[in-house]
Amino acid sequence: MRIVSGMRPTGKLHIGHYFGAIDNWLRFQKEHECFFLVADWHALTSDYQDTSDIPSHTQEMVIDWLACGVDPEKAIVFQQSQVKEHAELYLLLSMFTPLGWLERNPTFKEQKQQITDKDISNLGFFGYPVLQATDVMIYKGQGVPVGKDQVPHLEITREIARRFNNLTKTEIFPEPEAILTETPKIMGTDGRKMSKSYHNSISLSDDENSVEKKIKSMVTDSNRLRRDDPGNPDACNLFPLHKKYSPMDTQQEVRQGCTTASMGCVDCKKILLPNINNWLNPIREKRLDLENKPNRVREILHTGNQKARQVATSTIEEVRKTLHLAS
Amino acid sequence: MRIVSGMRPTGKLHIGHYFGAIDNWLRFQKEHECFFLVADWHALTSDYQDTSDIPSHTQEMVIDWLACGVDPEKAIVFQQSQVKEHAELYLLLSMFTPLGWLERNPTFKEQKQQITDKDISNLGFFGYPVLQATDVMIYKGQGVPVGKDQVPHLEITREIARRFNNLTKTEIFPEPEAILTETPKIMGTDGRKMSKSYHNSISLSDDENSVEKKIKSMVTDSNRLRRDDPGNPDACNLFPLHKKYSPMDTQQEVRQGCTTASMGCVDCKKILLPNINNWLNPIREKRLDLENKPNRVREILHTGNQKARQVATSTIEEVRKTLHLAS
Repeated sequence: MRIVSGMRPTGKLHIGHYFGAIDNWLRFQKEHECFFLVADWHALTSDYQDTSDIPSHTQEMVIDWLACGVDPEKAIVFQQSQVKEHAELYLLLSMFTPLGWLERNPTFKEQKQQITDKDISNLGFFGYPVLQATDVMIYKGQGVPVGKDQVPHLEITREIARRFNNLTKTEIFPEPEAILTETPKIMGTDGRKMSKSYHNSISLSDDENSVEKKIKSMVTDSNRLRRDDPGNPDACNLFPLHKKYSPMDTQQEVRQGCTTASMGCVDCKKILLPNINNWLNPIREKRLDLENKPNRVREILHTGNQKARQVATSTIEEVRKTLHLAS
Repeated sequence: MRIVSGMRPTGKLHIGHYFGAIDNWLRFQKEHECFFLVADWHALTSDYQDTSDIPSHTQEMVIDWLACGVDPEKAIVFQQSQVKEHAELYLLLSMFTPLGWLERNPTFKEQKQQITDKDISNLGFFGYPVLQATDVMIYKGQGVPVGKDQVPHLEITREIARRFNNLTKTEIFPEPEAILTETPKIMGTDGRKMSKSYHNSISLSDDENSVEKKIKSMVTDSNRLRRDDPGNPDACNLFPLHKKYSPMDTQQEVRQGCTTASMGCVDCKKILLPNINNWLNPIREKRLDLENKPNRVREILHTGNQKARQVATSTIEEVRKTLHLAS
C-alpha cells in the first residue's frame, strides 16, 4: 500500500508527536511504500504573516524524524514546497471542488472560532482541505493515517478523487483509505493535552536535566491531595508515561503503590525518570550526530524531493493529458 | 511599461474581439514590453466538465492573433498552463487574499446568477480573481488593458500586490495600472452584442460568402420599417461597421442616404461588403498560411512559453526567498 502522511514544520517535536504519529510511521515504513512530507505550504495558511521560522523548524523537525528512526532508505522524506506539481494539481483540483464541501468543513468553522490571534479568513486557509487532498492524490496515495477527528478531512479527499474520476471518466486517483490510528493519551506537565503552544511538553530533544525538572513539576492525580491519600493511576497524568516507558512489572508495582498510598508521587516520578531517559538517550545521540552534520538533512531532503518529484510529475502528466492541457 | 493581457481559449475570434482587444495589443506591442497569454487554466474555472476543446481552441485563437498582426518578435505570446510558476504563485497569493475580497467580487455574484447551464460554484471559479492577479503579478506587470466593467477586477490585483508587499515589507510587486480601453460598439447580426455564444458574430476567419450572408441578414435600424422611411445611423447595428471599415466620405454618403431615405439598407450593405472584405483579406491570407504550417504556432508558443517561464521563475525565486521557502 502507498501511504502518505505529513506534518507542518513546527520545529522540535515532543513525545506526544512520537506516539501520535512517528510511532506509526516507523511501523508503516517497514511494510509499505511511504511518503512523509514537510507540509511547509500548509504552514502558510495560518502563518503567512511571519514565515521566518520555516527553515529552522523544517530542519529541527526532520532531525527528530530521523533521530526517531524514520529511514530515508525506506521512506521518501521530502518538502511539499519543493515539488511544484502540488501547486499545479491544487489549482486543477480546485476547479473540481464545490464550495459547499469546503463551507461545511467542520475544522474550518471550528478553527475560525478558536484561532483569534491570527487572521485566517483567507483563501489559502479556506482551500487547505484541497491542498491536503492534493498531497495525497499526487502520489496516488492509498492509505492515510488519521485520528478519529480527522476522518472528515479524508472524506473530502475521497470525494474529490471520486468526482475527478467521474467527470473525466478515468480512474487516475484511488480513493485513499483511512488508517485509523489511536490518539495516545499523553498529557502535558500541566495536565492539559501536550502541546508546544501550551509550553507543557517534553521534547524529544530535552536533556536529562530538563526532563527531570519537567517530570518533577508534573501535575499527577489532582484528587490525591495528601501523601497518605490513595491515588488513582487511571486519573493520573503521569501514569500514561509509565505505560509507555516502564516495563510491565514496574507499572504494576507503581499502580499498587499508588492505589494503596504506599508510594508517593515523588517516588513514582523517580522510578519513571531513568526509564524515559533510557528511551530518549538513543534519540538524543542520533540528534547530536545529525546536528553535527548539517548537510546530512539537506542531502536527505534533496534526494527525497527528487524522488517525490518523479512520482508527482508522472501523475500531473497523466492529469494534463486527461484535461487536454499540453505538457 | 510592462503590459500583461490574455484571453481564454475560445477558438476562432470575431471582429468584436479584434476591436475590443487585439487592436489595442497591436498598438501596445510597438511601444511596450508585452505578455499576451492564452488563459487556458481560466477556461477550466467554468468548463472543467469538458475540456476537450482546449487544444483546438488555443490553436485557432493564436492563429487569429498572429494573422491580425500580433508579432512574436515583439510580444511574448504564451500559454498560462505551460508556466507552472503561475500555479505556485497562485497558491502563495491565496494565503494573502482575504475571503471577503472574493465574496464581494461583483462578477462572481453576477456570473453565479447568469450562468445556469454549468455548475460554477467551485473553488477554482471563486478564486479566479487571484489567478488573474497572479497572471499579472508573476511578470511584475505595470499595465493591464481593461474595459470599464473590469476595473473592479484589477482593483483586487492591486490590493493583493499591496497587501503582499506590506506584510512582507518588500516592494516585489508593482501595483498595475488600468489602461482603460474603449469597449467598441460592435453588434452581432441579430442586434445583440456580438458574441460567439449568440451565434451572431462575424469571424475573422469567415470567407466572403459567409460574410455576405451574415451582412445581408443583419438587423439594421429597427425603427426603419419601410424602404421610404428615413433611418437613423446612430441607432443602426450596421453603421458602426461602416465606421470601422469604410472611408470617411463613404460614411458621410451612407449617413446622408439613410437619413434622407435616398438609400435603402440593401444598398448600404452592398457598399459595406467590399470594405469589410478588403480588411479581412490579408488576415485570411495569413490565416491560411499559418494553417498550412501547423508547427509554426507550436514553435511560437514554445518559444513564448520559455521566455515567459524565465521571467516567472525569477519572480517566484524572489517570492520564495522572501517567504523563507527553500528554492
